[in-house]
Amino acid sequence: MRTEICERLGIEFPIFAFTHCRDVAAAVSNAGGIGVLGAVGFTAEELEVELAWLDEHVHGVYGVDLVIPSKYEGQGIDGLSPQELEDKLAEAVPDGHREFAEKILADHGVPALPEGEHHNQLLGWTATTAGPQVEVILRHPKAKLVANALGTPPQDVVAQVQSSGRLIGALCGSVKHALNHKNAGLDFVVCQGTEGGGHTGEISSLVLWPQVIDAVGDLPVLAAGGIGNGRQIAAAMAMGAAGAWTGSVWLTVEEANVPPAQMQSYLAATSHDTVRSRAWTGKPARMLRNDWTEAWERTDTPDPLPMPLQMMVALNGVKRGHRYPEAAKDVNFNPVGQVVGLMRKVERSADVVGRLIEEYVEACERLNKLNGG
Amino acid sequence: MRTEICERLGIEFPIFAFTHCRDVAAAVSNAGGIGVLGAVGFTAEELEVELAWLDEHVHGVYGVDLVIPSKYEGQGIDGLSPQELEDKLAEAVPDGHREFAEKILADHGVPALPEGEHHNQLLGWTATTAGPQVEVILRHPKAKLVANALGTPPQDVVAQVQSSGRLIGALCGSVKHALNHKNAGLDFVVCQGTEGGGHTGEISSLVLWPQVIDAVGDLPVLAAGGIGNGRQIAAAMAMGAAGAWTGSVWLTVEEANVPPAQMQSYLAATSHDTVRSRAWTGKPARMLRNDWTEAWERTDTPDPLPMPLQMMVALNGVKRGHRYPEAAKDVNFNPVGQVVGLMRKVERSADVVGRLIEEYVEACERLNKLNGG
Repeated sequence: MRTEICERLGIEFPIFAFTHCRDVAAAVSNAGGIGVLGAVGFTAEELEVELAWLDEHVHGVYGVDLVIPSKYEGQGIDGLSPQELEDKLAEAVPDGHREFAEKILADHGVPALPEGEHHNQLLGWTATTAGPQVEVILRHPKAKLVANALGTPPQDVVAQVQSSGRLIGALCGSVKHALNHKNAGLDFVVCQGTEGGGHTGEISSLVLWPQVIDAVGDLPVLAAGGIGNGRQIAAAMAMGAAGAWTGSVWLTVEEANVPPAQMQSYLAATSHDTVRSRAWTGKPARMLRNDWTEAWERTDTPDPLPMPLQMMVALNGVKRGHRYPEAAKDVNFNPVGQVVGLMRKVERSADVVGRLIEEYVEACERLNKLNGG
Repeated sequence: MRTEICERLGIEFPIFAFTHCRDVAAAVSNAGGIGVLGAVGFTAEELEVELAWLDEHVHGVYGVDLVIPSKYEGQGIDGLSPQELEDKLAEAVPDGHREFAEKILADHGVPALPEGEHHNQLLGWTATTAGPQVEVILRHPKAKLVANALGTPPQDVVAQVQSSGRLIGALCGSVKHALNHKNAGLDFVVCQGTEGGGHTGEISSLVLWPQVIDAVGDLPVLAAGGIGNGRQIAAAMAMGAAGAWTGSVWLTVEEANVPPAQMQSYLAATSHDTVRSRAWTGKPARMLRNDWTEAWERTDTPDPLPMPLQMMVALNGVKRGHRYPEAAKDVNFNPVGQVVGLMRKVERSADVVGRLIEEYVEACERLNKLNGG
């Protein structure tokens, strides 16, 4: 199953593991795939710490996933520091949204954060805040791959990353987005079906993948959205994918820094328990349906704001969910795809990689046998 | 790609073509797959005519698809004739629904049906009306396969069909439904992902298929939802499917009795142009989004009624759409899956079968090559 992108990255299997946890990223890279660390939750300084740790623990290479949305509130405002941009955007949050968010958390008995515990509100959800992250990445030679989650990255970022000998790609949920990526000269696209976790479009993987693969010609397409076992990887590769981009499945591995109460939510969920909602980030993202998502869905409650304003409203809830996962279990932010229904037990990351390969081989053999081979 | 169910049916390829058009059904059966005629639009008398025609034109075997919903209004009302049941159900349609439907059509300039042109309203959407259809099927020896679209068929129907040497199966959109089918002793399940056309659940094919395949053990699973090319069939077979159940792709074949204006709607649509809506049948079904579906989605308009009441309201629109497809092009009932984005030209049915096989073989070869074969 070694494809050209494996050669370019120097990895054994085209298994890309998106995760917010450096331990998982390292484990996958060291098992022959490649861990891709989600950077959006980190300041540039924090990201530096994470990547330094990865440099030390990864034998080969790893990747970093940024979020520079192609459309967001505050876009085109130049010359402001991240804090100044945050202050400016905060003015655009209408009255009532923060109060509503606070009420949902209070109604569920989720304690407030300890007094004095400050957190920035904007995170890496803009070009202004993601820019310094790119500079951090370029200082880490094992950070060999950069992916952008929500659109074609700005041309200067593409040039910076590529001229440093790294590969840069981006996620897409439509043929149009994929062609934008190709025209911007990206090295690969990650094509994600609607069943995927986090930000996701409306077209299913089975229908989207072949369309994107045909549309972008020889640009490698990594198949994303719904992949949790090796049979699905065989399916993706049979359709012409250059690899498998996985995410949800790494939320229930032993190494994941997911609190037990939240991990339990994932393990207990079926594929019917997810919803595509704007209730956390402001753009449609798939997550477990719960009292938070339902509250923002109702017609008699505030509508979610555009990115990044909604996350500025919701981030306090994310942080309180991290700190008090038991209390927050019905209002937590649990991004995950429909494949959650296949996630039934906690495994070691390396074992997941091994299982994916094994299932892939079995699926190929099944097909060969069927064809009289 | 010959699987056990091919042997049992005596067909060459496990390609199942659901269609409302006998010409398409015959062409697919004669090309080595099996055409499955949708019976819901026909009275028992009309179905008799269709199957007699098929007997004459099909060399091998064909199938028939019924709609006996496992839940519907009027369920359990016994001892009424179809007309009596229809009259009784008509009383349950609230004031305003028929007027609203009529207004949508009138606003778009869709002419009324010629005066005196009567049509029954209930069709085959109940056990009462589908029962006589089963009797018709049993009189036609080449009608070797029966599938039920909306739930496990009643036990007496299962017994009748199986004791006559035919196979009976049913569609499912969840593991739970699949297990109900298995427990009822059905011969196969058709497992349809949310991207499929017509009545469909919420879980994508890629995620649903492997779960159902694992859940039902050795019961053959036909993969449905999103299949329009042979690469997707290879994907399904790699995941363990026993065959491919297709539908949408037969709407734009040369033999389809789809009016040119409607066929043009399908050919022009992208995968983004479908919606899962209750606006025609009362149960969620995927179709092209248009002014009709939007009208019923709005919060200031009547909500769609449960099955079969909504179709009793909407059927006049279906009939007028058939008769005046040009006028009705923005309010027509256009059931189709997301695979519509792959349907770009009119092909002959036999050529579609040939193309599916060819693409399947190519996909298998791609996989073999990747694996060093």
